[in-house]
Amino acid sequence: MASTFPLSFQVLIDKLVKFPGIGRRSAERIVHFILNKLSLEEIKSLSEAMVKLKESIRFCSVCHNISEDELCNVCKDTQRDKGIVCIVEEPKDVIAIEKTGIFRGVYHVLMGSLSPLDGRGPEDLSINELISRLNKNSISEIIIATDSDTEGETTALYLAQLLKPKGIKVTRIGMGIPLGSNIDYLDNGTIIKALEARRAI
Amino acid sequence: MASTFPLSFQVLIDKLVKFPGIGRRSAERIVHFILNKLSLEEIKSLSEAMVKLKESIRFCSVCHNISEDELCNVCKDTQRDKGIVCIVEEPKDVIAIEKTGIFRGVYHVLMGSLSPLDGRGPEDLSINELISRLNKNSISEIIIATDSDTEGETTALYLAQLLKPKGIKVTRIGMGIPLGSNIDYLDNGTIIKALEARRAI
Repeated sequence: MASTFPLSFQVLIDKLVKFPGIGRRSAERIVHFILNKLSLEEIKSLSEAMVKLKESIRFCSVCHNISEDELCNVCKDTQRDKGIVCIVEEPKDVIAIEKTGIFRGVYHVLMGSLSPLDGRGPEDLSINELISRLNKNSISEIIIATDSDTEGETTALYLAQLLKPKGIKVTRIGMGIPLGSNIDYLDNGTIIKALEARRAI
Repeated sequence: MASTFPLSFQVLIDKLVKFPGIGRRSAERIVHFILNKLSLEEIKSLSEAMVKLKESIRFCSVCHNISEDELCNVCKDTQRDKGIVCIVEEPKDVIAIEKTGIFRGVYHVLMGSLSPLDGRGPEDLSINELISRLNKNSISEIIIATDSDTEGETTALYLAQLLKPKGIKVTRIGMGIPLGSNIDYLDNGTIIKALEARRAI
């Protein structure tokens, strides 16, 4: 077994299996792909792209979204409504919401969620920055779009209690059955949320 | 949409989706992983591993398996029976068979399969090298382990006709139902092959 792969092959596989979604089989396929389909120039260009990513990406000074400049693409956009702030846990949540193309406000990225069990408290998130942002700007609505797991719900509750006394309209993104799903395949928690969130039609 | 990702993010995603088994979603996850979890040192070490792979891997001068030296790990191994040669299409087939740990012979990698439709004839495979290898060494058995698709079967048939007149024992790996499979889930072709390959018990 140990002698199956040449050393340089095995070294690369061991690095690739640490990536998300890449198992031992996919790592082998990728190594074969690099070996057979990529030129040395393409490998070098891929390496440069990774270094460039790491060196050029920082966090937006306003909302903590990933950015190549002082301000991210959303905060830079003069067409966006700076009065509506959508609070999310991670930069990838911004990307997910941006893909829908329907949200015209701006974001605030918490850089995580509250988790008393893991010892992550409010001071570990960008909550102080959020408060000073609210004090400086006129905000008409805050939409809390944290995940619907325990940590996300805890964070949403904490933020609602913190922000409501400031007289700002605070909303939570809707919970319910996802589009295109079969009721009988859904978990109990989702069905309960969906029943609670029922609306007159 | 176009402005969702910073440029360096998008550049890397576009490179990664060309890899086998990596779609747009996985590419995004990998880029987030590189950004958040890998240090610049780890990125450079990954890049070096890819270059090292490309620069150090060549083909074994005897069997065409991938190798870091003149001879591959299998051909180098004095414990292997050089009289039994297993013919496969690609270096990855060697790896698949080596993982079983039961084959003690050596290999010959064709570097492809015959495909008249795609214009791949015997001269595109390492068949001349195979013949001169047979002429130089004493071979007791040749096991043809090409794929069981049309090209693999065509290649097996061609090789059998070429090699049998030389008085060498030529066998084809067994065809039948894969281990642990349900008969009712199998395609007709496999069931027909399995019936043809039935043996007294």
